[in-house]
Amino acid sequence: MADHSALPLAVLSEQFAKLPGIGMKSAQRLAYHVMEMSDAEVNAFAKALLDAKKTVHTCPVCQNFTEQQLCRFCSDEKRDHRTVCVVETPKDIAAFERTKEYKGVYHVLHGLISPIDGIKPDMLKIKELLSRVNDGGVDEVIMATNPTVEGEATAMYVSKLLKPFGVKVTRLAFGLPIGGMLEYADEVTLYKALENRNEI
Amino acid sequence: MADHSALPLAVLSEQFAKLPGIGMKSAQRLAYHVMEMSDAEVNAFAKALLDAKKTVHTCPVCQNFTEQQLCRFCSDEKRDHRTVCVVETPKDIAAFERTKEYKGVYHVLHGLISPIDGIKPDMLKIKELLSRVNDGGVDEVIMATNPTVEGEATAMYVSKLLKPFGVKVTRLAFGLPIGGMLEYADEVTLYKALENRNEI
Repeated sequence: MADHSALPLAVLSEQFAKLPGIGMKSAQRLAYHVMEMSDAEVNAFAKALLDAKKTVHTCPVCQNFTEQQLCRFCSDEKRDHRTVCVVETPKDIAAFERTKEYKGVYHVLHGLISPIDGIKPDMLKIKELLSRVNDGGVDEVIMATNPTVEGEATAMYVSKLLKPFGVKVTRLAFGLPIGGMLEYADEVTLYKALENRNEI
Repeated sequence: MADHSALPLAVLSEQFAKLPGIGMKSAQRLAYHVMEMSDAEVNAFAKALLDAKKTVHTCPVCQNFTEQQLCRFCSDEKRDHRTVCVVETPKDIAAFERTKEYKGVYHVLHGLISPIDGIKPDMLKIKELLSRVNDGGVDEVIMATNPTVEGEATAMYVSKLLKPFGVKVTRLAFGLPIGGMLEYADEVTLYKALENRNEI
């Protein structure tokens, strides 16, 4: 339907298709769905987009998204502010919160070092982490980036920069996932599980 | 994160989660993605939503979506206006257009009869189809709803209403999909293929 390319439905489809994980076909389906929504519903959707973008900003301390001055972790006196968990994205925080075990605070890098994608260290919130540690009051920094090439490289890079501050730097443990089956474990995970075996 | 329920990011996530095929987890991922978009990009997205909803309406003849007075099929003199293909949704039209073989026009029902979902015949664009046929100029109506329970029931219901007008009513053929393998065909499809076998 080439002659439709500049028309409102096509424009809306293209907007949906720009979102991660939404292909052109799903985008078209979503655009058609919007047509079936009421005016009030579409207005609410558009308003939610603009409101979120306008009021949500990054916390000046940990770089997590917030609409308050400080995010709810940095402003919570009951959290352990001496332990900082470094993650790639704000949504990784939700994963840690689901464990209900972690009581420290966070630092969001907003990406991983990836020369292949042109993402250099100065494009991440690394200097904010260093100045935070430099200001004192931090005992341990937990590097909680994903166990991928970029995640490992970023964890190594950041930990080297942190060492001079005399702070303890740790990395998440890797091994067999709980409930996983040995026969389905990939060789790298199994090697890590073997290497990091604990005495019982 | 219950205490986040009325906050802008949560509101935006809920808006995404209302869209078909997007669960709460994907919705959250999309909301976070919006935070990484520029102001101009978010504004363009919100504008596309509002523009599409404002300018796109249903064609008074065939009920397809259009921003013109008549849709591009109904206003095209080169199409065969004596043959009307009846489909469930506007996106089904795109499937027929991809065949590049169908030269007739369309009629969109905007749904299928489904008592279980509370969708009654008078909620569909059936009376518009009847009045269109009643106005004359239509030789054949092709019932092109999906081969599902609801699609079959709707095709039967509509064809019964059309019979008194003396118009030819046809149904899409069902059988083995081209390129499909006999051993993977489900029994209903295979039965249909056998039942509707043609002499060669």
